[in-house]
Amino acid sequence: MAEKLVPREKGFSEWYVDLVLKAGLADYSDVKGCMVIRPNGYAIWENMQRVLDRMIKETGHRNAYFPLLIPESFLKKEAEHVEGFAPQLAVVTHAGGKKLEEALILRPTSETIINSMFARWIQSYRDLPLLINQWANVIRWEMRTRLFLRTTEFLWQEGHTCHETAEEAEKETLTILDIYRTFAEEYMAMPVIAGRKSVSEKFAGAVHTYSIEAMMQDKKALQSGTSHNLGQNFAKAFNTTFQGRDGKQSYVWQTSWGVTTRLIGALIMTHSDDSGLIVPPRLAATHVAIVVIGKSPEERATILTRAEALAAELKREGLGVIVDNDETKNPGFKFYEYELIGVCLRIELGPKDLAKEQCVMVRRDNREKQAVPLAAAAGKVKQALESMQTELFAKAKKFRDDNTFEVNSYEELKARADDGFLLAHWCERPVCETRVKEETGVTTRCYPFGVRQEKGSCVVCGQDSPGRMLWAKAY
Amino acid sequence: MAEKLVPREKGFSEWYVDLVLKAGLADYSDVKGCMVIRPNGYAIWENMQRVLDRMIKETGHRNAYFPLLIPESFLKKEAEHVEGFAPQLAVVTHAGGKKLEEALILRPTSETIINSMFARWIQSYRDLPLLINQWANVIRWEMRTRLFLRTTEFLWQEGHTCHETAEEAEKETLTILDIYRTFAEEYMAMPVIAGRKSVSEKFAGAVHTYSIEAMMQDKKALQSGTSHNLGQNFAKAFNTTFQGRDGKQSYVWQTSWGVTTRLIGALIMTHSDDSGLIVPPRLAATHVAIVVIGKSPEERATILTRAEALAAELKREGLGVIVDNDETKNPGFKFYEYELIGVCLRIELGPKDLAKEQCVMVRRDNREKQAVPLAAAAGKVKQALESMQTELFAKAKKFRDDNTFEVNSYEELKARADDGFLLAHWCERPVCETRVKEETGVTTRCYPFGVRQEKGSCVVCGQDSPGRMLWAKAY
Repeated sequence: MAEKLVPREKGFSEWYVDLVLKAGLADYSDVKGCMVIRPNGYAIWENMQRVLDRMIKETGHRNAYFPLLIPESFLKKEAEHVEGFAPQLAVVTHAGGKKLEEALILRPTSETIINSMFARWIQSYRDLPLLINQWANVIRWEMRTRLFLRTTEFLWQEGHTCHETAEEAEKETLTILDIYRTFAEEYMAMPVIAGRKSVSEKFAGAVHTYSIEAMMQDKKALQSGTSHNLGQNFAKAFNTTFQGRDGKQSYVWQTSWGVTTRLIGALIMTHSDDSGLIVPPRLAATHVAIVVIGKSPEERATILTRAEALAAELKREGLGVIVDNDETKNPGFKFYEYELIGVCLRIELGPKDLAKEQCVMVRRDNREKQAVPLAAAAGKVKQALESMQTELFAKAKKFRDDNTFEVNSYEELKARADDGFLLAHWCERPVCETRVKEETGVTTRCYPFGVRQEKGSCVVCGQDSPGRMLWAKAY
Repeated sequence: MAEKLVPREKGFSEWYVDLVLKAGLADYSDVKGCMVIRPNGYAIWENMQRVLDRMIKETGHRNAYFPLLIPESFLKKEAEHVEGFAPQLAVVTHAGGKKLEEALILRPTSETIINSMFARWIQSYRDLPLLINQWANVIRWEMRTRLFLRTTEFLWQEGHTCHETAEEAEKETLTILDIYRTFAEEYMAMPVIAGRKSVSEKFAGAVHTYSIEAMMQDKKALQSGTSHNLGQNFAKAFNTTFQGRDGKQSYVWQTSWGVTTRLIGALIMTHSDDSGLIVPPRLAATHVAIVVIGKSPEERATILTRAEALAAELKREGLGVIVDNDETKNPGFKFYEYELIGVCLRIELGPKDLAKEQCVMVRRDNREKQAVPLAAAAGKVKQALESMQTELFAKAKKFRDDNTFEVNSYEELKARADDGFLLAHWCERPVCETRVKEETGVTTRCYPFGVRQEKGSCVVCGQDSPGRMLWAKAY
């Protein structure tokens, strides 16, 4: 029997890393801070990409690809942007055996290189809106890294759009945020709080940043997607202008937005347990593992035939299915393995089951076990997967709601610092935000949408507050 | 009316670049040798990826992702490999505000970084075969670049596999070559010659390299995919070993293989004409553009309804469809645009057509025009697309075959240097290969499979030749 995972109770971080490594989701590479995404992990990313790519295209965006390498001078054009990213840049100084005349930066994000092209492509309002997305790798030199959650290189999609008016750009920013929310909730089964970031937490170069924030099982927040209204900041830096309907030249209004392979970490930390990975069926690569049980070759042969017939039926429904007839491993070991790697449903099929024309179906998340007539198995599988998807979301939402509190004084905030999401009044001054962060480790997450906002007094300094900010310890 | 393309006759290269830029397939960036793949070009790449990814997975491979950055010391472990790639490397020397202790190389290919992981993951023959693929960007510093065909950064898939025996590795190498051939011929409608490369043209670090070679409309060859049998070269450099069935430790046998965004260039140069892009329907993003023709708003409204009904029917068949009701541009301009960007079929629908319950369908490749009853249009579209796919291949194959010659003396080879593919005997000594290249510009492409090989005498030196090599000027 393989070694068990460190249980969550003993150390949530240790459990997480142990799970990622043992389930073959990712591995450390020999390059500091860079991970290898192994096939079990990459399959989740591919499913995420498939769904998000469809949602992004359905809203009129088209994919393109821009260079990895950005001239150093481009990064410097938008002052706030370069200041924000300077500590994280990786620099190519030599290439083709020579020192380069101008150093090239590995993209930490692509606003600058993309604006250098947009400035050429856009002439008139007829070229707007310009709605572009790219799937790419980016590099941000990180001091402390963690598999999936914070790595020097990561994969993401980054959208970049140009609009005629400020209103259209703001609308786009929120449309995308809602796509991210929908994706998180309906596919990842991960409830999120959508809202606006504080000034100190916004993207370097944006006017506003919006985010979705999820609660992990250790009650910490994980920022799971961001959508930025860039205003005309990059347009001015790159002279990205268009001739308007009024015949005058104006700067375009822009947005940018992205989600990353961090979402794989979010998915793991939202649903998984001490036995291993739990994947919501809508993003799972393997929905069903059918384990053939039997001693004699004859016994197994008959069962295998039935297992394969069921597998074929399930595959026709678009499900990922493994039929496991490996005689060198015992069923217990296999059950353990399929739980570890997060197969949604296990189907056990042995001679006694076959005699009753049934199979035994076990759900990964709640271990619910039921005997199901073979003739009805395919239907039951679909039902079970649908229930699993719904119940994973409900469970995560209940956990999040149970661990969200209104706090009305700084004492209360400090006392609840490790308790989850805290809704507290704040004066919007960085001085109070910094004090809370330094004294408690709790940071501002976002002004949550959908929470009835009323004026109050900052829990730190007592000055006027426009509404409750969501605070939490965060990844 | 927009500006016409430089005709092929006036300069094939100028035509190619003109087409790529004007059809919005790609653009130059401000970073030397790096291009931007624009949405019209990227859509072709996405369709190529979709098909190839399916074929790669159907043969048991799984996708993963390995770091972009490779420690310099890794590259140096396989002597031939580093020698081959040294002139093309881009080097990160600084990151996070500091000079790095060890320089990091931007991957020119990933054999080394991947072997550093394979060496950890593989213990026993039970871990074999290990069949991995990755979709990624790579960087090779190129002196002379051309959009899609040779760029400093390009996108590709790179497969990396490990096997128990030399025979299995060789079989894998050829299986993949055949996938590439099938993809080129059945999807890109581009006939290719598959075969083995000469020693001087093989991949740096491989035992054998196989390639597929296509003929462009200027009769030059374009290497369109390579599959390498790596033997144990990298396994020895990285100590990638396994415990065999005999209980002994052995080095794994490996392969690697890839195709790149160069294929987009190959597709363009195989099929397109002086009016613009021609895309084989199986890889086209837009199959049909329905142009609404009419003067009064009432006239257009009725026609638009019918156009949209037809579009919906075609979309249900999985086709990409545009309905164009833009009143600000005249039909002639639209026809020109759709020809330029390579829409497979144009459907014209005007008041006279509607009166006859028909539409006019024009095929992009041969401009065949036919009036088709509206009720039968969807079926006719599918038929036309199928014919177009078949005929594009047949036309390209005839062109290739008509421009392939057996040559039996060096004089003849020199005389035919610009005529296309030349099949000539060669002694296999680099000295003759180099002489031909220097004196004529013609290079060895591959020992073609499926050509009956018989012994002869090298056309250069007269020494024994094992069979005819395929020679050509090449991209």
